[in-house]
Amino acid sequence: MLTFIGLGLFDEHDISLKGLEAVRAADLVYAEFYTSYLMGTTPEKMEELYGKEVRLLSREDVEQQPDWLEEAKTKNVVFLTGGDTMVSTTHVDLRLRAKKLGIETRLVHGASITSAVSGLTGLQNYRFGKSVSIPHPYESKRGVLVITETPYDTLKQNSELGLHTLVFLDIDKDKGYMTVNRALELLLEVEKRRGEGLMTRAVAVGIARAGSKQPVVKADYAEELKNFDFGKPLHILVIPGKLHFLEAEALVELAGGPGAILEEAE
Amino acid sequence: MLTFIGLGLFDEHDISLKGLEAVRAADLVYAEFYTSYLMGTTPEKMEELYGKEVRLLSREDVEQQPDWLEEAKTKNVVFLTGGDTMVSTTHVDLRLRAKKLGIETRLVHGASITSAVSGLTGLQNYRFGKSVSIPHPYESKRGVLVITETPYDTLKQNSELGLHTLVFLDIDKDKGYMTVNRALELLLEVEKRRGEGLMTRAVAVGIARAGSKQPVVKADYAEELKNFDFGKPLHILVIPGKLHFLEAEALVELAGGPGAILEEAE
Repeated sequence: MLTFIGLGLFDEHDISLKGLEAVRAADLVYAEFYTSYLMGTTPEKMEELYGKEVRLLSREDVEQQPDWLEEAKTKNVVFLTGGDTMVSTTHVDLRLRAKKLGIETRLVHGASITSAVSGLTGLQNYRFGKSVSIPHPYESKRGVLVITETPYDTLKQNSELGLHTLVFLDIDKDKGYMTVNRALELLLEVEKRRGEGLMTRAVAVGIARAGSKQPVVKADYAEELKNFDFGKPLHILVIPGKLHFLEAEALVELAGGPGAILEEAE
Repeated sequence: MLTFIGLGLFDEHDISLKGLEAVRAADLVYAEFYTSYLMGTTPEKMEELYGKEVRLLSREDVEQQPDWLEEAKTKNVVFLTGGDTMVSTTHVDLRLRAKKLGIETRLVHGASITSAVSGLTGLQNYRFGKSVSIPHPYESKRGVLVITETPYDTLKQNSELGLHTLVFLDIDKDKGYMTVNRALELLLEVEKRRGEGLMTRAVAVGIARAGSKQPVVKADYAEELKNFDFGKPLHILVIPGKLHFLEAEALVELAGGPGAILEEAE
């Protein structure tokens, strides 16, 4: 049996009771923290809570050589990840591999940033369009820094439909956690090139440390928000589309957004 | 202090450790179960786990006369809901009211169906477009049964963009929980009127009892799926857009979907 467990957003106490029971009943506990990471805890603190050794898997262990899967044929194995479980393509692939090995699988869900942003910002979840990721720029063979324009295209599409966009920020082993500030700089850089005016008039909402006791949620025009100090990671970004009045009120009252957005709301 | 706590998907053990600690430390515990409901438990079982009385709030208590909010000025009050917290507009409104009363608020997130559907179906969360709700039909003043076409329009828009659609199903105090079967019948009824061929060629994925030990996840063509027995509520529906190969494989292997979709995948 292989049980996929989502640990939730921030620290070791975000696991559900159901998840904790499954971990404590397990023969082997594996975890991967390269697709997502709980900033408010450490594997050591998890081990203390669980009373079990947590074996950390590298990207290669998960995607190339998941030999450890074999153990789930005869043992009770759990696989831990940040956020909700199975949200990453990689996890779906693991579950398909397990199925081919004749291993029964089960999911224990955890809180996900995709629903948490709605609660934290007051932006209604059914008014979000396609979400998007902003990767770190990379250097081309000719030594030019390449900034992808794909996120801008998706933002434009959602904006035309009046929908909000959830913007995931890159977590990279070498380049680090992308901040809201850097993501806005990159979007504004693309704006300069394209000159379509999408970002210059846009309100943005930055969120830091969702799930912690003191999450920071701040709304402002993108040009202003790029200079706001959000503190430590993880960060995530939302670019709202058309705002209902209640959404605008939430951004002003709960996220310190500019009062002018109340006048533009529906 | 007012703490909004999301209880997760199915039963009383889906609460996070953090949520449970907050409930146990509270002076007063309120809950509303009309926007969402945990099918695998009862308020009595919750009370037993929490060691606290759970006071159930009606829609009126939450939306019209939330006098109980006043108590959070001096007491430690928690407000429980199914799924993640603050996803409903009603909860945002409550938080704004609390703010106006000078009450500090805090959120403890729980697992949400919006991310759980990705895990259960293998459909990638960043490939979903705007989500939609299918309400029960209602009788017009002239006695005609009115079926709204709004969900069909949203499905069409997402389909044109190649995006998946999460379809929330009505929870109504009098008319009951809408099933996947009824929702598909309604969509196919609108299809008959409009004749645009959107639903006749569509694959659909029905999910029942997400978060339980034995959730049912079944993919098939809408015309076939409308006759599948999903068992007890809660149900939810996804109409996939364009499928990546891994998504198609997941629907075939993990949700018993028709093999033909593998050939149409990208």
